[in-house]
Amino acid sequence: MTEAAIITLTTDFGMRDPFVATMKGQIYKRLPTARIVDMTHEVVAYWPMEAGFWLERAHPYFPPGTVHVAVVDPGVGTSRNVVALEAAGHRFLAPDNGLLTPLLARDSLARAYRIDVDGAIERFGLGPLSATFHGRDLFAPLAAELAAGRAAIHELGPLVEPLRSQDGGALVVTDDAVTGVIITVDHFGNLLTNIEAQFVQRFERPVVRVGGCTLPFRRTYGDTHKGECVALISSFGVLEIAIREQSAAAVLGFKRGMPVRVERA
Amino acid sequence: MTEAAIITLTTDFGMRDPFVATMKGQIYKRLPTARIVDMTHEVVAYWPMEAGFWLERAHPYFPPGTVHVAVVDPGVGTSRNVVALEAAGHRFLAPDNGLLTPLLARDSLARAYRIDVDGAIERFGLGPLSATFHGRDLFAPLAAELAAGRAAIHELGPLVEPLRSQDGGALVVTDDAVTGVIITVDHFGNLLTNIEAQFVQRFERPVVRVGGCTLPFRRTYGDTHKGECVALISSFGVLEIAIREQSAAAVLGFKRGMPVRVERA
Amino acid sequence: MTEAAIITLTTDFGMRDPFVATMKGQIYKRLPTARIVDMTHEVVAYWPMEAGFWLERAHPYFPPGTVHVAVVDPGVGTSRNVVALEAAGHRFLAPDNGLLTPLLARDSLARAYRIDVDGAIERFGLGPLSATFHGRDLFAPLAAELAAGRAAIHELGPLVEPLRSQDGGALVVTDDAVTGVIITVDHFGNLLTNIEAQFVQRFERPVVRVGGCTLPFRRTYGDTHKGECVALISSFGVLEIAIREQSAAAVLGFKRGMPVRVERA
Repeated sequence: MTEAAIITLTTDFGMRDPFVATMKGQIYKRLPTARIVDMTHEVVAYWPMEAGFWLERAHPYFPPGTVHVAVVDPGVGTSRNVVALEAAGHRFLAPDNGLLTPLLARDSLARAYRIDVDGAIERFGLGPLSATFHGRDLFAPLAAELAAGRAAIHELGPLVEPLRSQDGGALVVTDDAVTGVIITVDHFGNLLTNIEAQFVQRFERPVVRVGGCTLPFRRTYGDTHKGECVALISSFGVLEIAIREQSAAAVLGFKRGMPVRVERA
Repeated sequence: MTEAAIITLTTDFGMRDPFVATMKGQIYKRLPTARIVDMTHEVVAYWPMEAGFWLERAHPYFPPGTVHVAVVDPGVGTSRNVVALEAAGHRFLAPDNGLLTPLLARDSLARAYRIDVDGAIERFGLGPLSATFHGRDLFAPLAAELAAGRAAIHELGPLVEPLRSQDGGALVVTDDAVTGVIITVDHFGNLLTNIEAQFVQRFERPVVRVGGCTLPFRRTYGDTHKGECVALISSFGVLEIAIREQSAAAVLGFKRGMPVRVERA
Repeated sequence: MTEAAIITLTTDFGMRDPFVATMKGQIYKRLPTARIVDMTHEVVAYWPMEAGFWLERAHPYFPPGTVHVAVVDPGVGTSRNVVALEAAGHRFLAPDNGLLTPLLARDSLARAYRIDVDGAIERFGLGPLSATFHGRDLFAPLAAELAAGRAAIHELGPLVEPLRSQDGGALVVTDDAVTGVIITVDHFGNLLTNIEAQFVQRFERPVVRVGGCTLPFRRTYGDTHKGECVALISSFGVLEIAIREQSAAAVLGFKRGMPVRVERA
């Protein structure tokens, strides 16, 4: 297992400073053969929902058993808990702030454990934790221990029911419509929602309403023409709002958190 | 071979979202020992020429046999082909959109194969391809199979003559002059052209004309003074327009695609 | 040793172009099993002090023996020297321009060697050096040879006393105060100084003065409220100026190099 041990990192730290690098150094100290993948370090600070969205969408493209570390942690230094989640054959470490909500929704058999931090410090010989950088001091070493197979996830602490975000993330599904939100804006300015394909594709002719606009639904980019604003299913399986070869975010001015509604025509 | 298997990634995806990360996950699923290098993810969307330029200039610094994946793919989801190229002892995977032109120009013995996509899906057990993200669904798994030595490049499909870009990329060389274009602007604001050193250095006193300006040619940065705008040979062996400790792009306002002419004085 | 060989890269090259990638290719050519970590590629061009600051703060989070390459090198192509430093159980390669000053200050037993460049070219079969990119042509191959255990650091050239930066980096410590400077601005807009915790924590009630402002010192973020501008000890053990959930750099307009003074209240 250790030869193929993969650890992904999802943070809001950016890549400008060595914050992420020191997490990698901490991992290599304990597991020199780790493969470390930067999932993203540009999720919006202080909105854990976006990190959870990407983890839920992206993790199936990694080998089973991968350890995914997510540190979007506005509560660092307070009494917030840290949880280890086993879901869909993968393992996740994150602060208990609602970040994992999309993964809990995906896998009803998911099991979460509240990290016994003092126990982990003792067992794994962690140094004293800084007040503000548990990604480096706690999450990275724990991820290495899990990935190395030296710790089982259920040994890290008691079973717990993780916090679920109340922050606009839940879909409202009826027979004739589904309502979700814009979760993120990608590099190309496409707006990704949390509305999964199945809730759109059940309608023969879906109509998409957002920010006062009504957008046509297209099956592929090839069905659109330059400059046309459309909704389609993104390569990550959710409804996306896009303008071919332009930034929909810039043109439309839509932002994270805006409600999106798909109706039967 | 697999122990040292190196795969480079060149895209226009940026690093803000997990697009690149999921390509890496797909590679590790098939080749856990791969070494993956981010060549660049910031090439200009929709101008494949820039990606080809960098691949041609950068690949010699990697070990022979390296697999280079380039996904600048405005035609994704259309009937555009995907090609595998063997050139200069390296292997390249790219959409057949002119991106590989600089490599074809470099190695007259280069051989290209049109990927039999349906055959690859069958042979390598690829899942269904999304309409918009072949980098993750097709290129990454193929790169892993090639790098792992489980597929030979000539098995991937029939020999083909790749498209060559007509988009300003070809040099015009005469006895007294050479004309090329600005291909890219680097992090420091230096403007790199596609004019190779040999076409400049054959002149005792080259004169460089671009955008209505005439620039002196200097052998090294050390020969320039602060604020002076000059042409010189970059560390990648092509003519570069630079201002010492300033951004030539910002000061001069020159852009990608502008013609550059070097004349015998 | 080679299985766990880790090499970190600190540059001002950015990640937009393949500059860093070609350094990695050069390393893998000589040491296919290397683990390469991007420390940061966004240090300020032309201010080596910032790179040295981060190296000194970050290196303890990497395994002993790690080879750290730092290329912030405005003098490339001139007669500036290149040094290899052994300090605190780690190895460092850098131009001799003051960059290593913070590491020399940390470890009084540090030993530095001036690289015999011609000897290295001969011994390690380096190609001809470009005039402007020694990171790729010299530093990367040397780092691989060191990390591979095929060269010992003291064989690279004679002992030398590296240049020490005179550029505002030295602390002025008295019984009642300590004066340093703002070294860097992080991703969140926090301002990090070179004033280590020990010089602040010796005062019962430290007062921090910078840019005409007097800031309260807080033990943790939890002790502050939103919008309050405070000084505290960062997770890297130095005095930091921060505004909770805002960018102190943007709000206060403070910049790199500004003096910061901490006094006994």
